[in-house]
Amino acid sequence: MTATVHTLQANRAPSLEPMMALTTSGMNAVNAVILDRMQSKVALIPELAGHLIAGGGKRMRPMLTLASAALFDYPGTRHHKLAAAVEFIHTATLLHDDVVDGSGLRRGRRTANIIWGNPSSVLVGDFLFSRAFELMVEDGSLKVLKILSSASAIIAEGEVDQLTAQRRIDTDEDHYLQIIAAKTAALFAAACRIAPVVAEAGEEAEDALDTYGRNLGIAFQLVDDAIDYSSDSATMGKGVGDDFRDGKMTLPVILAYARGTDGDRDFWRSAISGDRVADEDLARAIDLVRSTGALADTLERARIYARRAVDSLGSFPAGKAKSAMIEAAEFAVARAY
Amino acid sequence: MTATVHTLQANRAPSLEPMMALTTSGMNAVNAVILDRMQSKVALIPELAGHLIAGGGKRMRPMLTLASAALFDYPGTRHHKLAAAVEFIHTATLLHDDVVDGSGLRRGRRTANIIWGNPSSVLVGDFLFSRAFELMVEDGSLKVLKILSSASAIIAEGEVDQLTAQRRIDTDEDHYLQIIAAKTAALFAAACRIAPVVAEAGEEAEDALDTYGRNLGIAFQLVDDAIDYSSDSATMGKGVGDDFRDGKMTLPVILAYARGTDGDRDFWRSAISGDRVADEDLARAIDLVRSTGALADTLERARIYARRAVDSLGSFPAGKAKSAMIEAAEFAVARAY
Repeated sequence: MTATVHTLQANRAPSLEPMMALTTSGMNAVNAVILDRMQSKVALIPELAGHLIAGGGKRMRPMLTLASAALFDYPGTRHHKLAAAVEFIHTATLLHDDVVDGSGLRRGRRTANIIWGNPSSVLVGDFLFSRAFELMVEDGSLKVLKILSSASAIIAEGEVDQLTAQRRIDTDEDHYLQIIAAKTAALFAAACRIAPVVAEAGEEAEDALDTYGRNLGIAFQLVDDAIDYSSDSATMGKGVGDDFRDGKMTLPVILAYARGTDGDRDFWRSAISGDRVADEDLARAIDLVRSTGALADTLERARIYARRAVDSLGSFPAGKAKSAMIEAAEFAVARAY
Repeated sequence: MTATVHTLQANRAPSLEPMMALTTSGMNAVNAVILDRMQSKVALIPELAGHLIAGGGKRMRPMLTLASAALFDYPGTRHHKLAAAVEFIHTATLLHDDVVDGSGLRRGRRTANIIWGNPSSVLVGDFLFSRAFELMVEDGSLKVLKILSSASAIIAEGEVDQLTAQRRIDTDEDHYLQIIAAKTAALFAAACRIAPVVAEAGEEAEDALDTYGRNLGIAFQLVDDAIDYSSDSATMGKGVGDDFRDGKMTLPVILAYARGTDGDRDFWRSAISGDRVADEDLARAIDLVRSTGALADTLERARIYARRAVDSLGSFPAGKAKSAMIEAAEFAVARAY
């Protein structure tokens, strides 16, 4: 294997297009598994699950499993079922997240908990989570089961940790990084790691892909958290300011609070505790994360994690899969601009 | 193996004592695994999980795993971890159930959702569920993983099904039996079935224990549903009338509705739809399930399922384990009186 330098064509912004093109036929197979295995004789299950699953997500995680498998020229089909399992775990997490946050919108559509109620979202999430394990058991790899059951426990731990940190202005950058490593990056890492497992590419390849996924996941989350304080609400499905109104301690807030004047810090304390949820409060928050450089530095950190993701692929040979994965990491950061 | 007839000493009521005595040292080992594996650096997790786990449940399901293993004189310790996994799945289900039902009391204590809120209960449930799978993966039996992942999906399906049937007076006995087979009996069956798997006792023994657990689970649920219409609220931790106020279509209601006069049926329709939640409405409901024989017939059906559970043990040799399991089935019904 030789190290390669990847250069983008100068005339276009980095995108997910190459990864989508690389995984088109594989994703069709994954989507077929998803559609097939979300069925149940209890009609509400496919109805509710279908609403979210058909709701226009990027399917980033299963796509990463497929792209990672392509990196090893894996010729089999086992990864289709496993990528579907990864997406089911992710979907279950989203259903429960929206209940936990009381969210009303996701990707620009009404959330399942708003349409069908919290009880249905909790239970259908449980169903999808169980179904994910059934798919893994059918595949039969204890190593994959270990990777994904461990990731699932870490995700839940991270979600509880985030809930505990909510509305606590004393949450620091280290704690925040722990939370996003658990709630977001663990599943990105697992989605990538299972590909070299089924391709039997060896421990070193597994570690490299784990590193890629983990750092990519952190970069994505940092940028998501920055976008929540961008002034352009068209950037993502959920509205700008959701984290602010929920009192979530994300990096832009942590940095702006650390750097603020006494008056700014008073503002952040009362905002995070839930006393400032008006539009002019959000406007002031957006102004502060910009003027203190908190937003720029959040994105700068994202760029470093994305760079680490790219570097972890160093030992793999050049090719379509590697290029697509590199560009995905660049896209993770570029979508903020 | 020879068939045996089990006769109770005439001077005492059937109880769980023999099963508890049989499994004392094993349950100490299981409890140690439970305590150890519910830990997390996120303090809220052991705090919340501990509240429910220490809350005085019978630990019926792990006890069944241990008793079933004793039936085969299984000499190993693998079943301790697996019994803990079964209890974690059950605990996760209880946490989510209490959120779904908005319950405030369980076993006479305030529920976790009341103390820590719905979000925490949802997420800690997810954590325990993931931890259950981690324990199974550590054990390494794909057969056990298949049994318990399948049971988990069936439980979630049953819970959604029950939610769909809630406040629907047209739910019939068959539908009700499907629901309780899924939401309750599936985990009882799985808890019993995994014992002959680890004891390598063969397919026939697995099927017999599955039948035992499934029928025992249905008997327990039928009696629970009857007790909810008993007039003595000391019988169980949760208050009498919870199902009635929640508009749950349990067998006492289904039979009383089927047998009622036009006036009675009007009453049930409005009660189940949520329009009659006063104490005098509950009193009338209790009167109707008695006068129509619905309560007695619910218990009569429970007795038949308990009898089936006992009969499924027919081919196993007499001994303490078998006697304890037979008496547990008799206890399932006897506790209603």
